[in-house]
Amino acid sequence: MSDDALLRLMRLNAHYAAVIDADRLEEWPDFFTEQCLYKITSAENRRRGYEAGIVYADSRAMLADRVLALRQANIYERQAYRHIIGLPVLEHREGIVAQTPFTVVRTMRDGRMDLFVAGVYADRVVADGDALKFAERVVVCDSSRFDTLLAIPL
Amino acid sequence: MSDDALLRLMRLNAHYAAVIDADRLEEWPDFFTEQCLYKITSAENRRRGYEAGIVYADSRAMLADRVLALRQANIYERQAYRHIIGLPVLEHREGIVAQTPFTVVRTMRDGRMDLFVAGVYADRVVADGDALKFAERVVVCDSSRFDTLLAIPL
Amino acid sequence: MSDDALLRLMRLNAHYAAVIDADRLEEWPDFFTEQCLYKITSAENRRRGYEAGIVYADSRAMLADRVLALRQANIYERQAYRHIIGLPVLEHREGIVAQTPFTVVRTMRDGRMDLFVAGVYADRVVADGDALKFAERVVVCDSSRFDTLLAIPL
Repeated sequence: MSDDALLRLMRLNAHYAAVIDADRLEEWPDFFTEQCLYKITSAENRRRGYEAGIVYADSRAMLADRVLALRQANIYERQAYRHIIGLPVLEHREGIVAQTPFTVVRTMRDGRMDLFVAGVYADRVVADGDALKFAERVVVCDSSRFDTLLAIPL
Repeated sequence: MSDDALLRLMRLNAHYAAVIDADRLEEWPDFFTEQCLYKITSAENRRRGYEAGIVYADSRAMLADRVLALRQANIYERQAYRHIIGLPVLEHREGIVAQTPFTVVRTMRDGRMDLFVAGVYADRVVADGDALKFAERVVVCDSSRFDTLLAIPL
Repeated sequence: MSDDALLRLMRLNAHYAAVIDADRLEEWPDFFTEQCLYKITSAENRRRGYEAGIVYADSRAMLADRVLALRQANIYERQAYRHIIGLPVLEHREGIVAQTPFTVVRTMRDGRMDLFVAGVYADRVVADGDALKFAERVVVCDSSRFDTLLAIPL
């Protein structure tokens, strides 16, 4: 039962990373429930209790809008991401509550590669029919220095 | 069944990484079927449909030759790799078809460490007796800038 | 059975990383048996058979002392770690013997981020009631160049 939740969350994260890293951004909002919370913040902001994120969306529709804006801005073309998502720590409350570490390596078009972000996903995951969806995914970045190109979803 | 395939592939990848990173390169060809495809390419080349890889082998014997050449060149001594292999996304067609992200950190003899490669393994895995083997492992690197020292298997 | 051991070790590693990276260092000694071996060394030292580590403890009490010293020195405040722990390769001998690759990204207070350590955990894990504990965790770093700030547990 518990192993099952772990493996299902690992599959969800694997799929999530693959979709973003393959630039299939239009599929990204589907990982979330219709009403949801997606937020990018920093460890420091979180410690200080700042609620506002650098990126904030509270519905799947807002996430879809964000993808549309990215496509129009064409920023996404200049870089590729590679997520490495670590092992989740699960708590069972309502749905699955999990903390999952991750890093993202960014590759620029000219081939330069850097360690772009490290941090932790603070998630609340719920069943939506047969699938698992993120009711909340708060992306807590270890660093507060954000690249101005922070455009592709993390 | 499906969890089983996920876990078996994770074990295979763990073992694959451990063998390379411990410089037990002679065991590396055994991860492949006798007739196989091992190729290192870049995301850009793949997008453009270039079939040729930077490294290309279509049999286990060619992989063994490659290891022999590496041992003679002694290039491998100057660096060590550390693979971190992420969570696979599986499809079931013939055998297991999987996409698995990875990064490799390289440590030079003098202690310098860098993020060497990030990318994704595009695999076709088949049962070979009790074991799983790679019928195809295409290593798709995110960057097209390849280090001239690209010598150790990825 | 064997899948079970793999998943249990993955959970243990996930929890271990989460505790350190969230600066809950006081919980860290609890991952070890009362008599234990915790050592940080380098691949080169290990190859040469040097037994001494850069950090060495042979009891849970020594680990607790180390945490106390860190708290007094306040070094830990200047940096945060993010462990990404890879897939373990298991052997069953007495208890679970495992080799697990890892990387640690370090974020300094001013936001600078670097790839701090890459290496492998050489573990012996035993059951302690319902929990798994490390009877041995030897942290083998790929590089021999150690940062003088090597203070937080790896």
